[in-house]
Amino acid sequence: MKINEEGIQNDSEVLKPLKASRQTGTADTIVTINAVQVGGPDIIVIAGPCAVESQEQLFETARSVQSSGAQLLRGGAFKPRSSPYSFQGLGEEGLKLLDLIRRETGLPIVTEVMDTRQVELVAKYADLMQIGSRNMQNYPLLKEVGMCRKPVLLKRGMMASIEEFLNAAEYILSQGNENIILCERGIRTFETSTRNTLDLSAVPMLKRLSHLPVIVDPSHGTGLRWMVPSMSKAAVAVGADGLLLEVHYRPEEALCDGKQSLSLDEFDLLMVELRNIALAIGRRIA
Amino acid sequence: MKINEEGIQNDSEVLKPLKASRQTGTADTIVTINAVQVGGPDIIVIAGPCAVESQEQLFETARSVQSSGAQLLRGGAFKPRSSPYSFQGLGEEGLKLLDLIRRETGLPIVTEVMDTRQVELVAKYADLMQIGSRNMQNYPLLKEVGMCRKPVLLKRGMMASIEEFLNAAEYILSQGNENIILCERGIRTFETSTRNTLDLSAVPMLKRLSHLPVIVDPSHGTGLRWMVPSMSKAAVAVGADGLLLEVHYRPEEALCDGKQSLSLDEFDLLMVELRNIALAIGRRIA
Amino acid sequence: MKINEEGIQNDSEVLKPLKASRQTGTADTIVTINAVQVGGPDIIVIAGPCAVESQEQLFETARSVQSSGAQLLRGGAFKPRSSPYSFQGLGEEGLKLLDLIRRETGLPIVTEVMDTRQVELVAKYADLMQIGSRNMQNYPLLKEVGMCRKPVLLKRGMMASIEEFLNAAEYILSQGNENIILCERGIRTFETSTRNTLDLSAVPMLKRLSHLPVIVDPSHGTGLRWMVPSMSKAAVAVGADGLLLEVHYRPEEALCDGKQSLSLDEFDLLMVELRNIALAIGRRIA
Amino acid sequence: MKINEEGIQNDSEVLKPLKASRQTGTADTIVTINAVQVGGPDIIVIAGPCAVESQEQLFETARSVQSSGAQLLRGGAFKPRSSPYSFQGLGEEGLKLLDLIRRETGLPIVTEVMDTRQVELVAKYADLMQIGSRNMQNYPLLKEVGMCRKPVLLKRGMMASIEEFLNAAEYILSQGNENIILCERGIRTFETSTRNTLDLSAVPMLKRLSHLPVIVDPSHGTGLRWMVPSMSKAAVAVGADGLLLEVHYRPEEALCDGKQSLSLDEFDLLMVELRNIALAIGRRIA
Repeated sequence: MKINEEGIQNDSEVLKPLKASRQTGTADTIVTINAVQVGGPDIIVIAGPCAVESQEQLFETARSVQSSGAQLLRGGAFKPRSSPYSFQGLGEEGLKLLDLIRRETGLPIVTEVMDTRQVELVAKYADLMQIGSRNMQNYPLLKEVGMCRKPVLLKRGMMASIEEFLNAAEYILSQGNENIILCERGIRTFETSTRNTLDLSAVPMLKRLSHLPVIVDPSHGTGLRWMVPSMSKAAVAVGADGLLLEVHYRPEEALCDGKQSLSLDEFDLLMVELRNIALAIGRRIA
Repeated sequence: MKINEEGIQNDSEVLKPLKASRQTGTADTIVTINAVQVGGPDIIVIAGPCAVESQEQLFETARSVQSSGAQLLRGGAFKPRSSPYSFQGLGEEGLKLLDLIRRETGLPIVTEVMDTRQVELVAKYADLMQIGSRNMQNYPLLKEVGMCRKPVLLKRGMMASIEEFLNAAEYILSQGNENIILCERGIRTFETSTRNTLDLSAVPMLKRLSHLPVIVDPSHGTGLRWMVPSMSKAAVAVGADGLLLEVHYRPEEALCDGKQSLSLDEFDLLMVELRNIALAIGRRIA
Repeated sequence: MKINEEGIQNDSEVLKPLKASRQTGTADTIVTINAVQVGGPDIIVIAGPCAVESQEQLFETARSVQSSGAQLLRGGAFKPRSSPYSFQGLGEEGLKLLDLIRRETGLPIVTEVMDTRQVELVAKYADLMQIGSRNMQNYPLLKEVGMCRKPVLLKRGMMASIEEFLNAAEYILSQGNENIILCERGIRTFETSTRNTLDLSAVPMLKRLSHLPVIVDPSHGTGLRWMVPSMSKAAVAVGADGLLLEVHYRPEEALCDGKQSLSLDEFDLLMVELRNIALAIGRRIA
Repeated sequence: MKINEEGIQNDSEVLKPLKASRQTGTADTIVTINAVQVGGPDIIVIAGPCAVESQEQLFETARSVQSSGAQLLRGGAFKPRSSPYSFQGLGEEGLKLLDLIRRETGLPIVTEVMDTRQVELVAKYADLMQIGSRNMQNYPLLKEVGMCRKPVLLKRGMMASIEEFLNAAEYILSQGNENIILCERGIRTFETSTRNTLDLSAVPMLKRLSHLPVIVDPSHGTGLRWMVPSMSKAAVAVGADGLLLEVHYRPEEALCDGKQSLSLDEFDLLMVELRNIALAIGRRIA
């Protein structure tokens, strides 16, 4: 893609044939997860711990984020960790805990799938299956979740261009699954003061090029708890359809990503601020 | 700098000795340009053409952006262009036109200085002297504007880390000039669908590490006219103290950066939207 | 990792506990693939087409690269393509063609595995199983090839740091498979005149931090046929244990990566030049 | 620029009109500095300390690198340092020391100029004027050295694309000065184990697009003393016309860049190895 006066040169040639591309007259895709609609006028917030660690940790966090206004619950059971010696997640036991808290709260569950052989298992528990950044170009996995009809949350690779991101979504769409939510989560740049560089310009760019809903993950995008609120507000202002936030009932004790997780109180306060921004741009947060 | 639980590791060692660094108890620096205060509760908007091209172009644009709410006027007389064969600016004639329209409108003038030998001349006309991205580490120039006491707008280099950016400001401060406004204007990354990647996380990071005001330039940060409004809203939401926007009375005829310049009407509409965001975060735009 | 006077700060803390790390006194790992030794004094060359397309294409290319001095044959049967609509490889039929030409020439086979479910199948045919860049952090796949005892060629991810690369190797090592060859193949940067930026400094860095053999892929690293010879020579001079080169009997008709594939004659000529460089640094190419 | 089957798409349109561009039939430019020719069949080595610190340091280093085979002497008198509180160089006193050692050894002098106001002074002492990376797009400075007819060593900016690099050279050429040597010195990427990422592919790319000589600076390119020899060998193998190396008689006591400076013995040993590589590719080092 090249920039021209209209904004994007050649995207007609490169992206027009994609099912993921917005054509003249295409309506925005709204992905429905149980009763929650993503991509419509309301902005939705997905919150929860990076990893499911224990019943107490998951349940206390879930109840609290729900009361603050979160509409979906995130929690990893299978965790992609840079080192083989880091905590790898609770596996199916984690999925069962997610199922239990869903029954109690009614919150739909978002959890990651990492292996083609796990898709069936994860699909049994998840309401929204997450493909993580490291797997954005794991094509067999994309095809497998494409054949499964559960909604998919596709995270942008750390170094994926917008064009590659939409082509990754196309792998899912090409198998018949149109329920895809795109997620900007920070790209890798030379700057090291933040964990990644959250590329908020990806939101208007993706909304212009594609009909799919776009959400933002400021937790991984910044890696810094104190910065998550300001970047969350920016994400709402820029036009994101939702946020994916790491929240932990005791961030300092988290087995994974504690330094980027909001506490329950911080999350509650942030939700109030986000509602004001949403109103200012004519949208709404539950 | 490294990330730790508190957000930034080692910044005590690296940045604490800098005059640009925030120490415990440091008050925010407010830079006063004629009657306009940057870094206080109000968010200020600087608007105008990339380059001064003619009296008509400058005057029509200036009058219009003022009526829409801009508080400072930008316009380049000396232009740093990638090619020696591109339009290089009107030089002193451009400065004189800026002076004329200042007399008419009262708008303070922001214009770039590129050469140590020009500092005296530019300081005679400018109310706020701009150091462009390509000169962020032009140390003799930084020292020269540091010795001059006019306020300075220092733009982040395309590939400058936050630490290098603050050290560049320190070159100015070390000469006794404390009237510095930092400007995030996009960094260079692998992504090519936008001209640069506007790093909005730089705003909260700079505000935390330094007491200097921070503004954002979404025109260079995106390179795309249609994307400027959404990124401007995000910049206000994230906590910027101001915006630097390219506006042209006839963008399609601009000699420089036309494809990222807002039209007069687009700018007027954007100002209305920005005021709503500002109110939502408890600030104000004139 | 941070740089200090000794070269790398903190690598003791970060990388010392890894099986992939060089400890005081560790001997270099030599990976033996049939009769070919990688990581010893001789420099080995792996050559062949990006993708197996047909019997004629594969066989003519294989015979020719063997006569020029290649010691292993590469050829993709399962291809990770950015678009789902690009040629995806011949699958098992491609593996069978690779098997046939191996029987004729005796050349060991290098081919990619992309899916945990394919590991058993690919291991049946491959002498060296390749993990592609996009799968460098596909942890279930790394574990699966770690449990299989076939040698593994692990390509660096486009955006992977040296530390992440060695941690990816550790996933394989942690399952008991020590037969790993690391491959630098270009990283993604802002520069667009080449397909990637071949990071030759990764070779001495990896050799210093790890005992594993390191080879270089200048075909993907540059994306430009005319540039492959000069970067191949540089890779030998910098200390690589081998090269991975795309060669096609008719590059202009290739279904995949034709513009970075050497012709048979170009490859033959290059081998002569590489032998001279190898001798100049006291090594040898067959 | 875009890659196509021929290697570079659109370079005809973008770069053909430049004086820096290679046209059909253009002969390679050979820059003559006193008796030394850069860009011809011989590969030249420029060596010396990062900064001139004292007569003893400069003279001992200069005599030693000359006896090892260096043909030009580098040494900074005006130093661009990230922090205003770091050693800024000896200024004119440093230039005078360079002049003294030139009289003794006959070695031509390479030294940096940072300010348009210094060009006349530096040109009085230098045989080859260096424009540093941070000033690659300091256009008034480029024009000023363009009007001066002394040969210029132009270093690539840390974030400059090949196209921008050639356009920077064009600023010098457009003023009538054709004696330009281009220098690749590492670009900024996400990788932090080296100071920069030395982009050796820039050498064949620049040689293809331009008729100007191209040298490589592995000292800044890696930031690591132990890595300089292997990357120097790679630079010769890839086709560079010369090397720029930091050498210090006591690296551990250097006021600037000690951890990337070779000792006198290391440099002497390296020269022997480089001569072997040069012979292997049909070139020669004095």
